[in-house]
Amino acid sequence: MVQPRTWIDADLDTGFGLDHLPLGVGQRGVLVRIGDLALELARLAEDGVALGVEPEVLRAADLAPLLAGGPDALGRLREVVAQLATGPARDDVARALVSVEDVQLRVPVRPRTYVDFYASLDHATNAGRIFRPDGDPLPAAWRLLPIAYHGRSSTVVVSGTPIRRPWGQWRGEGGVRLAPSARLDFEAEVGFVLARASTYGEPLHPTAFRSMVGGVVLANDWSARDIQALETFPLGPFASKAFATSIAGWLTPLAALEAARVSPPRQDPPPAAHLIDEDPWCLDLELEVLLNGETIARPPARTTYWTPGQMLAQLTSSGAPVEVSDLYCSGTVSGPSPDEVGSLLERTWGGTRPLRLADGTERSWLADGDIVEIRASAPGAFGGRIRLGSVVGRIEPALPNPW
Amino acid sequence: MVQPRTWIDADLDTGFGLDHLPLGVGQRGVLVRIGDLALELARLAEDGVALGVEPEVLRAADLAPLLAGGPDALGRLREVVAQLATGPARDDVARALVSVEDVQLRVPVRPRTYVDFYASLDHATNAGRIFRPDGDPLPAAWRLLPIAYHGRSSTVVVSGTPIRRPWGQWRGEGGVRLAPSARLDFEAEVGFVLARASTYGEPLHPTAFRSMVGGVVLANDWSARDIQALETFPLGPFASKAFATSIAGWLTPLAALEAARVSPPRQDPPPAAHLIDEDPWCLDLELEVLLNGETIARPPARTTYWTPGQMLAQLTSSGAPVEVSDLYCSGTVSGPSPDEVGSLLERTWGGTRPLRLADGTERSWLADGDIVEIRASAPGAFGGRIRLGSVVGRIEPALPNPW
Repeated sequence: MVQPRTWIDADLDTGFGLDHLPLGVGQRGVLVRIGDLALELARLAEDGVALGVEPEVLRAADLAPLLAGGPDALGRLREVVAQLATGPARDDVARALVSVEDVQLRVPVRPRTYVDFYASLDHATNAGRIFRPDGDPLPAAWRLLPIAYHGRSSTVVVSGTPIRRPWGQWRGEGGVRLAPSARLDFEAEVGFVLARASTYGEPLHPTAFRSMVGGVVLANDWSARDIQALETFPLGPFASKAFATSIAGWLTPLAALEAARVSPPRQDPPPAAHLIDEDPWCLDLELEVLLNGETIARPPARTTYWTPGQMLAQLTSSGAPVEVSDLYCSGTVSGPSPDEVGSLLERTWGGTRPLRLADGTERSWLADGDIVEIRASAPGAFGGRIRLGSVVGRIEPALPNPW
Repeated sequence: MVQPRTWIDADLDTGFGLDHLPLGVGQRGVLVRIGDLALELARLAEDGVALGVEPEVLRAADLAPLLAGGPDALGRLREVVAQLATGPARDDVARALVSVEDVQLRVPVRPRTYVDFYASLDHATNAGRIFRPDGDPLPAAWRLLPIAYHGRSSTVVVSGTPIRRPWGQWRGEGGVRLAPSARLDFEAEVGFVLARASTYGEPLHPTAFRSMVGGVVLANDWSARDIQALETFPLGPFASKAFATSIAGWLTPLAALEAARVSPPRQDPPPAAHLIDEDPWCLDLELEVLLNGETIARPPARTTYWTPGQMLAQLTSSGAPVEVSDLYCSGTVSGPSPDEVGSLLERTWGGTRPLRLADGTERSWLADGDIVEIRASAPGAFGGRIRLGSVVGRIEPALPNPW
């Protein structure tokens, strides 16, 4: 199978062909990306092109109104766009195409609930070994349920947003001090965005994933490891992981990831009844982490122990609902090899094995000015690979003492 | 000082006199409570009474648009209402008064961020002794910063909402099982509601409290202790505390609590620079917990170690903003005596010392049908006491197996 023919003069071999069609939001509303072009849907609708969606939904400042139609409505819109692209050339459609270079993407969703899981066995094992060298690396409950915590939804920002080094208290050589974090880190994650609300009090089964989730975004859950180490016990990370979570500006619809589905890792022991996933969406996303343009890790998402359906089930297991635009992330994606890990924590083994970069400098942790980019690709429907929207952030120096 | 005279035929000796004037939201918008009456502000505004607030703000489904005016706007509205009550009798005002019995209160705020602190020294010490009998009861960081975690904002519900016993995995005598929680608990807390947004990247000083926070609500952060014990390590409580947080339907404006301010407990060691609170709002709220109508504890909020200004500073310390309607709670309020504790966990010492109720039954944990009410009173401006809106919840049986 190859990409269908289109009259649109876009480069479809970039991972953004007609088997992808990710959604974004620019200054003039909802966009669909086709190659290096972005189709302005609000403009199309205003020109009278039938899209099956109300124009105000397409003019919105984020994807929430569009997502609220559910995954099926997203699928219908996707078909309409594919038909416009593969049918006869149309002036009205051509007029609504702009270069992605000219688009300033907004944050695609503004979640009320943002939850971060801890679903990678290799990551959890590595983190356990680094943080608790004398104990069992895996928490006792780790294989019983997908462990997670709630993050700060108001600091979910779009790719490209500058990341200011945070202040906080942490334990250094001279004791605990209040200072800018000296152990700033990234976490390469896969995020799932809700396109349907569930009912308060009614837990979801893992197989609800397909009917509830609209799509996937790459995420970088920035972390201040020194602040985290001091504050985490016993209620979990707080300020150390609340200053910024960057997400890609392009949301890949679930429909574009059908070809990327693979069997999940075997779970031992078998999961409890509410976590049995008979329709697992384990995804063969090949992540890539670049530091100042240099590839430093290639985390494989297919190794993630818990499926996104199991995460959704755990999210709602005690009766809490999910809402449209809610975001939950996998947690750091790490594979078994040292160059497959999704954090500097693991890459430099807690800062003890600095990473030598091509420019000759070393990094135990992120330096001011560093640029971290997370990319991913996955098998597409036409035999090639789609490329997820990447997520980029540059570290800005800490504020002068704000107090 | 005594309550000023008013022509309104309301019983002002109930703790809801003119020194209180809490805000709520009913089916017809924003309400101010005066004694056993509620003043419908939207109706007043529609009748042409000048309130200094746009009518649509008063017709809203929650307090967010009103809070967005900031604490000063809340203060001006409060003065207008007091003047209407103490001036000459007016038919238009009389027409807008309804009995509180006839009002169905909605949840007053729908926060995006809900944060639960752990600010009571006695509670943290008790919880540490119960959960970790062999270790130091206080976490190493406890006296260095107000420890907190993010909760599930979408399950913040109004007083009176039924509380369904949640399912989850927990460790029983035969090992880990999936079952309804058998250790359901309440937590008596004091909640603080934001009336102003802060700027992303700019930490707040504790003294910002007065200009940022609109008022106080009592809260019950329902907890499933068995699920909590299994899931909490290392990332904190998740599903066990995400099924419901009940808050009072009446929000007490900060202005009504000036007379309740007392000196906070001495902090040892002295707090770090960003936590020095030169305008502390330690509040002399006397909480009361009733189980099926019987008083089982009287937690004193004045003993809370960390001030609400310090909590606000910690919330924003790494650069995260707060937003209008955000809610942060003190964590369980407990005093030093066994009948001053704000949870059954402490009252029954982890379930090992069941509580004998007046009806002859015993409780280690909450039973289906149990009704928990949290009340509080505080010194008012006129020499008497104001009574905060109470928060009530009744335990409903667990769903039949939902999976």
